[in-house]
Formats: sequence, C-alpha cells, structure tokens
Amino acid sequence: MRASPERLRITYRLTCAVGEDPDAKARDIAWEQTVELPEGSIPPDVEQRIVGEVEAIEPLGAGRWMAAITFDPVTVGADLPQLLNVLFGNISLKAGILVTGMDLPPSLLGRFPGPQLGIQGVREACGVEARRPLLSVAAKPVGLTADALADLCYRLARAGIDIVKDDHGLADQETAPFRQRVERCQQATQRANTQTGGRSLYFPNITGPAPTLEERVRFARSAGCRGVLVSPLLVGLDAVRWLAESSGLAILSHPALAGAFWHEGHGIAADVLLGTIFRLIGSDGVIYPNVGGRFPLSLETCEAINRNLRAPLGRVRPAFPVAAGGIEAARVPYWTGRYGPDTIFLVSSSLYAQPDLEGAARSLVDAVKRHGDERPIEGH
Amino acid sequence: MRASPERLRITYRLTCAVGEDPDAKARDIAWEQTVELPEGSIPPDVEQRIVGEVEAIEPLGAGRWMAAITFDPVTVGADLPQLLNVLFGNISLKAGILVTGMDLPPSLLGRFPGPQLGIQGVREACGVEARRPLLSVAAKPVGLTADALADLCYRLARAGIDIVKDDHGLADQETAPFRQRVERCQQATQRANTQTGGRSLYFPNITGPAPTLEERVRFARSAGCRGVLVSPLLVGLDAVRWLAESSGLAILSHPALAGAFWHEGHGIAADVLLGTIFRLIGSDGVIYPNVGGRFPLSLETCEAINRNLRAPLGRVRPAFPVAAGGIEAARVPYWTGRYGPDTIFLVSSSLYAQPDLEGAARSLVDAVKRHGDERPIEGH
Repeated sequence: MRASPERLRITYRLTCAVGEDPDAKARDIAWEQTVELPEGSIPPDVEQRIVGEVEAIEPLGAGRWMAAITFDPVTVGADLPQLLNVLFGNISLKAGILVTGMDLPPSLLGRFPGPQLGIQGVREACGVEARRPLLSVAAKPVGLTADALADLCYRLARAGIDIVKDDHGLADQETAPFRQRVERCQQATQRANTQTGGRSLYFPNITGPAPTLEERVRFARSAGCRGVLVSPLLVGLDAVRWLAESSGLAILSHPALAGAFWHEGHGIAADVLLGTIFRLIGSDGVIYPNVGGRFPLSLETCEAINRNLRAPLGRVRPAFPVAAGGIEAARVPYWTGRYGPDTIFLVSSSLYAQPDLEGAARSLVDAVKRHGDERPIEGH
Repeated sequence: MRASPERLRITYRLTCAVGEDPDAKARDIAWEQTVELPEGSIPPDVEQRIVGEVEAIEPLGAGRWMAAITFDPVTVGADLPQLLNVLFGNISLKAGILVTGMDLPPSLLGRFPGPQLGIQGVREACGVEARRPLLSVAAKPVGLTADALADLCYRLARAGIDIVKDDHGLADQETAPFRQRVERCQQATQRANTQTGGRSLYFPNITGPAPTLEERVRFARSAGCRGVLVSPLLVGLDAVRWLAESSGLAILSHPALAGAFWHEGHGIAADVLLGTIFRLIGSDGVIYPNVGGRFPLSLETCEAINRNLRAPLGRVRPAFPVAAGGIEAARVPYWTGRYGPDTIFLVSSSLYAQPDLEGAARSLVDAVKRHGDERPIEGH
C-alpha cells in the first residue's frame, strides 16, 4: 500500500538461525531502523508513516531470504549520516543481515550530486580521450623522504603513468611531512611532464584529522594538483561528500577499513559500499582489491562493483572502478578485455619488484596503448 | 630486538585456513599495514624502521593464533585516521584477522586527550556524587513533532531521569527540525528541573553532515545543553575526537554501524572498538547493547567493554559504560550489582511499553536510589 517509487528501498539478505522466522526478522528490521520501539507503543500516525514496510520477502534456499524493505524519505531527511543509519545503523549490532542493494527515490538522490568529474572529467584531466584504461601507480613506501617520493613521481610520470598517487599510508609523518611531500611530488611530476610533453597527474593523500581536511585540499589545489586520494572510512563518508562537492578536485577513494563491512552473512556487501555508497559521496574513482591479487574478493563481486560505479543513476555521473591490490602488470591487457576500457588499473607491487621501475612502468604504458590501438575494446 | 614500550602494540587473533602458516600470516600483516610492498623491494633502512615486528605468536587451538605485532610510532605520526589505518586499514580486506587489543606507547597516547569530563565530570554535571549508577532514557520515536518530543523530555525529567537523550535516529527531519527540537526539549527539561529542584540533563543528537557538526554543537551549547549524543561511525571517528576536544560538552557516543566491525573471526573486537577507540576519541559515555537484550553481545564482551572504558590508561580519564539495547527496568538493580555503580543504564523500550511513562520512570529512579542507599555497591 505504501510502496512507491518515492520511497527508499533497501534489500537485505537474511540468514535465519534455526527456528528464526524470516517474516519476523524483516519486520524487526523495519521497526529497529526507524522507531526502535516495540509494536503497540507508538502513535498510529507515526507507525503508519515512519515504520519501514516489508515490500517483498523471498526464499533463497539454505536458510537464506531476500527481504526488500522501503522507507519514507522523511525518515532520512537530507543527511548522508542518517541514510547510513537507516541502512545499517542499529541492525549492524544484530546478526544475519547483509545489505545487498539500496535504491534512492529521485527526491533523495537529488540531494547527492555525486562525482564532480566522473569518468569523462577524469579522462579530460588526464588528456586521455582514447578508449583505453588509465594507469595509476602509488609512490611508496611510507618511511621514504619527500625527496625520495618525489623522485619516484618523476620517474613514473616520465614513464607516462596517468595518475601517480601517494600510497594511502602516507599521512603527515615526520619522514615526509604533508606539505613538503605534496610540493615536491607535484613539482617532480610537472618537471617530468615538461620534459615528455605528457600530462601525468599527481594525487596526494589528504586523509587526516577532521580539522585539517579542508586545509590539505586547499594546499593540494594551490600546489597545482588536479585530484586527491582519500580513505572515506578513515575520515568519515560525509566529510568526503563535502570535499567532493566543494573542492573542485577529482576524488580517488581508497577502501581502507572497508573489508570490516562485508562478511558472508552480515554487513554491507562490497558492491553496495564501494559501488553505490562511495559513488554517491562523490568519488570519481574507487579503488578496490581485484580478484586474484592479495585480497579475497570474487570476480562476481568485482564486476558488481564496476557495475554499480558505472550504471545509470539519475543525474549522478559514473565513476571509474580502480582495480588494484596486487594487479600484475602483465595481466593488465587481460583485465582490460574483461572490465572494459573505462577502468583505472592501479599497479604497484609488480613494478616495484623490477630493478628498473621507470622502464617497467614504460613497458606497461606501451602495452596498454598498443592494446587500445590494436583492437577496439568492447564497451560495457 | 626492536620491541620496546615505545612502540605501538596491536594484538590480533588469526584464524588460519587449511595449509595457511600463522607465522607467514603475521608477517604479511606487518608488511601490509606499513610498506604494502613485497619483501626485498624496499630500502633496508625503511624496512628496519617502518615494517612491523612480530613480537609474539602463540597457538590458541582450533586453527587460531594470537599474534602481537609492534610498530614504530613514526608510522602513525599524530593522526587518528592513520592509527586506524595501521590498526586495520588494508588487512580489513583480507580474512581471518580480528583485532583484539591495542596498546599505545606514551608518546602516542599523549596525542589523545580522551574524555574531557569522564565519569567524575559527568557525575558532577548531573549532580550525582553518590555511588549509584546514572539513568538515561531516549526521547523517541522519530516522526514525533518537536513539541511531542519536548513533552517526553519534560515527563522524563520530572521523573528524575539523569540524562534524557534524543533517540539516535533524530537527525534534522522535517517532523522535528534540529534547532526547534533542541530548543524545545532543553526548555522542557529545564522547566521540569525548576519544578522538581532536580538536575536532569538533555543531550541532543548532533549527528549530521560534516559541515554542520560544529554549528550544531555550538547551538546545543548556547541553548544550555551540557552534553550531546553522536554516532562516531556515522560522522567519522576523528570528527568526534575534534568535537570532544573543542566543545566543552559531554560526549555520549552511540554504536550505530559498529556491529559491522565485529565478527567471530575477522574485524575489530567490540571491546577494542567501543572500549578503547571510542574512549580515546573522547567519549564520556559509550552506549552498547547489553547482553540479554535485543542484540547478541555476550556477557564476557560487555564486561570487556566496561573494563576498557574504565581501566587506568595514562592520563586518559575513564568513561561511563552505557548499557542499553533492551534493558528491562526491573533488571537495573541486578545489572548494577554486576557492573558496578559507575555505569549508566539506558532504558527505553520497557518504559515506553507502560501506559504511564512518567510513573514508570519515577519507579525506576526510586529503585536505583533505594538500591544505592540500602547497600553500598562493590567498587570495581
């Protein structure tokens, strides 16, 4: 009766313990995520408007059920934090509940501008209009001086890497303080560009204490950076939404801490967290650990992340999937065929393992450009 | 060799898959959480200083191992986000790793002032010097008008509830906009105090978008509130640290989303997240779902949270455990005996289920005061 396209719709995969009734479990979510009170103890008009409605519930076999629950957007208001709260706040403390989908009604979606550059804008910033994937490499590790990191940026930019980024563990350590590092890495990247005629970009990691975020972004922008790296779950998702809307810079989001959220039977599925939510907050690119690397995501999950980042979503621009986490340079052409050209490949370890970093990076760049030239890659 | 009291020490419980070597798994954590590069591809001085050191590894049986890994504080610098990153950033994306403890060296601990009021300061604000627990009730549910919520605050304050707080789902919805709600609820609480001579406090929920946090706190303070409710995982842990250090108000932290982090074999244990981390960021009280309510934490976990909130920790003040999540009013004396008087009991559902909310709340207040008078409660 209350189900309509104007409601927030969340799908959950329920895992029922022996004797647990899926209908009661779904109904409990609808109450717990809104009024947090027992049935019968709230005014009827509040119950009618505020309590979630179980729209559908279907068996998936093996004690699992799909439940779709819808909510009046008034419960969320205009807030990302409150949207996250309705999505999984209190029920995170329960068991056997996995968020598998989130569909915002247009009224709510309109409150989230999403990526300010998106795939097309990042391509323009990098000067890569061709339908080839972009390449990114991290300057690392933490412990190097700002000059040593700048030297890495210089060599990677000389090799033609599109986006050289700080390792996400580079914060404001005494070994390479933030401002010194950003200035020197940006200058080194520009110097390489001047020599090669290239357009490599350097994205510093601005992840830091809450009161420093705006200042770090401003510093990066004034140094000439076109984008930044940030770990949304370390600084707060809404802080990133705000930076995306206000900074004018590309936002490359790192998944640090994200794996805490996805578990077989309870949590927020990786494609919802990194695909839907990280895109909604304005990430122009989202780094995730690709299948077959040193992290255990499945191919199905990686493809679902790609889909959620790129699929039509009102006026929200598509964002780049950034496949990472131990991608072998030699496998980039394979993954390009699999994921399509609107992908960024973040390759680091396999390049650093080579004696000649710049040469190894240049070979990778050549392979990707050649691959793009030789056979038009299927779109998605 | 490098182990010393001057290093950050993190303990993990490792769950090894068949054929997985616990020593290799621990060593992988030490590298992944710092340099994120394969062995042999970084300068020896960086390896020596930055890579974590596996200090101890011991079998726990059933494929589980305890690993203690220490890190040079230079890796963390002065940042809470980077501390969280070293704690569980990238390895969150792996499997079978549970953070079970975190010990900061004095140099790092000194960067976190922690609770500004602590247990003693909150007692003073409430005017409860006696060694009895404090009582808290939420004004709820979302969907009520500001006037209806204010009327609840009035009745609960008349009954003598020490801290009347917003339900954590009250954000800035059109049904009860933030400023209107805070003004009216605070006035209603003060009116009740004037009538009874009591000192009930009203804590509004200031959880909201990043750019509004400071303004909401300022508004609450100027309205006369002595404390606020916030959900650190919805707004970002470091944002709360900053509010705690700068606001002059008591910080009551809600565990929304926290359950995503604790899982049997992977994540951050509840007592580390809600006990150690929530205290470090400056929570004066931390709400958690008590055993036996509508959430599945064990008694052992609840007691570990209590311990981490109250135990000596350098100059960091102890914080109040706030047992909640379906506490029956009638069981409060039992839990007081179990948890000790330096506890806040947050009781809502069982009071709202009564036809006379104010009368039920008053009975609870009387029972707690009588219990405190009759027999001195054992300290902890």
